[in-house]
Amino acid sequence: MKATRILGIDPGTNILGFAVIEIDRDQVTVLEIGVLHLKEKKNPSDKLREIFLEIQEIIERYLPQDLAIEAPFFGKNVQSMLKLGRAQGVAMAAGMTMGLTITEYSPKKIKQSVTGNGNAAKEQVADMLCRMLNLKPEKLELDATDALSVALCHHYQSGRIVSSKKSGWKAFIKENPERVK
Amino acid sequence: MKATRILGIDPGTNILGFAVIEIDRDQVTVLEIGVLHLKEKKNPSDKLREIFLEIQEIIERYLPQDLAIEAPFFGKNVQSMLKLGRAQGVAMAAGMTMGLTITEYSPKKIKQSVTGNGNAAKEQVADMLCRMLNLKPEKLELDATDALSVALCHHYQSGRIVSSKKSGWKAFIKENPERVK
Repeated sequence: MKATRILGIDPGTNILGFAVIEIDRDQVTVLEIGVLHLKEKKNPSDKLREIFLEIQEIIERYLPQDLAIEAPFFGKNVQSMLKLGRAQGVAMAAGMTMGLTITEYSPKKIKQSVTGNGNAAKEQVADMLCRMLNLKPEKLELDATDALSVALCHHYQSGRIVSSKKSGWKAFIKENPERVK
Repeated sequence: MKATRILGIDPGTNILGFAVIEIDRDQVTVLEIGVLHLKEKKNPSDKLREIFLEIQEIIERYLPQDLAIEAPFFGKNVQSMLKLGRAQGVAMAAGMTMGLTITEYSPKKIKQSVTGNGNAAKEQVADMLCRMLNLKPEKLELDATDALSVALCHHYQSGRIVSSKKSGWKAFIKENPERVK
C-alpha cells in the first residue's frame, strides 16, 4: 500500500490548528504540527487571505492527498459562526485548488473515532495522542492536537488498518487510569 | 481613466447572485448578471466547490480587478450563519486566487450607497437599478440584482464619479413616486 498523507485542520478565526500525518502501512508519522496565530491581523479579509495562503503552502510542502477538517455545527452566536464558516470556507477552498479530497468531521465524531469516547475532554485526547505518537504535549497547543485528531479520525474512517493493539481509548484507560476523571 | 471591471457577489447557500459591471469614464455597463442555483446539490462540500469553480470561471471570463461582496452580519440562526460564512469564504478565496481586491459591504451600506436609503426594499432597489441600467426586471432574480447593487456600491464607494444627474434615490422618487410605499 502506498503511503498516504492527510492534512488535518481545526479552523478558527484567531488560531488555526494544522497537522500533516503520513500513513505507511500500519505506521502513522506526524510530519508537521502547529498553529497559525491570526489575532494580530485586524482586518477580517487579511485573516482569511492568510489562512488561504498558509494552507496552500503547507499543501505544497507535503502534497497530502486528503484534507480532513473539524467542522462544529453549533456555536455561541451567529456572529462567531459566520466568522468560523468563513475560515472553514477559505481553508476548504485552499484544499480544492490543490485537488485534495475534503472530508468534514464533527468534534464528537472525531473524539469517538480517535479515543472511543465522544465526550472525552480535549486535554485527555491531546495527552493520549501525544503518547501514541511520541509527541511532547507541553510543546503543543490544543488547536494543534485537535487538528491532529481530525487527521487521525479521517485515517481511521477511511477503513485503513489501525496498527498498534495498544492504541484506542480502552487501552489508554487501562494504561493510564489516573488520567481519566 | 482606464475602464474598471467589478464583480459583485451576493453569496447564499442555495442561490448565489453575481454581476459583472464595467465602468468606462462615466458609463456603467452590465457585462453579465445572473444566479447560480445550488439547491439540487445535496452535499455541502459539492456546493462550496461549485461556488468556487463558477466564480473562478466568471473571473477568467471578464478579468475584473475588484470583487465586492455582500456580507450580512446577522442572521436567523447559528446553523444558517455557518453555511453562509462558508459560502462567503469560498467566494472570497476564488477572488484571492485570481488576485482581485476584495471588499465587503453590509446590506444597509449597499442600499444607502445605491439608493440613498439604507432601509429601501429589495424590490425597490431592483426596480431602480433596472431603470438606471436599462435591464429587464422580469428576467432577473432578486439575488442577481443584489449582486449588481454591491458591485455598484463598490464603484460609488471607490470615489469614482457618479455619472448621470438622474441617478440616485432622490431622482428615482421624483420620477417614480408611485413606486415608493
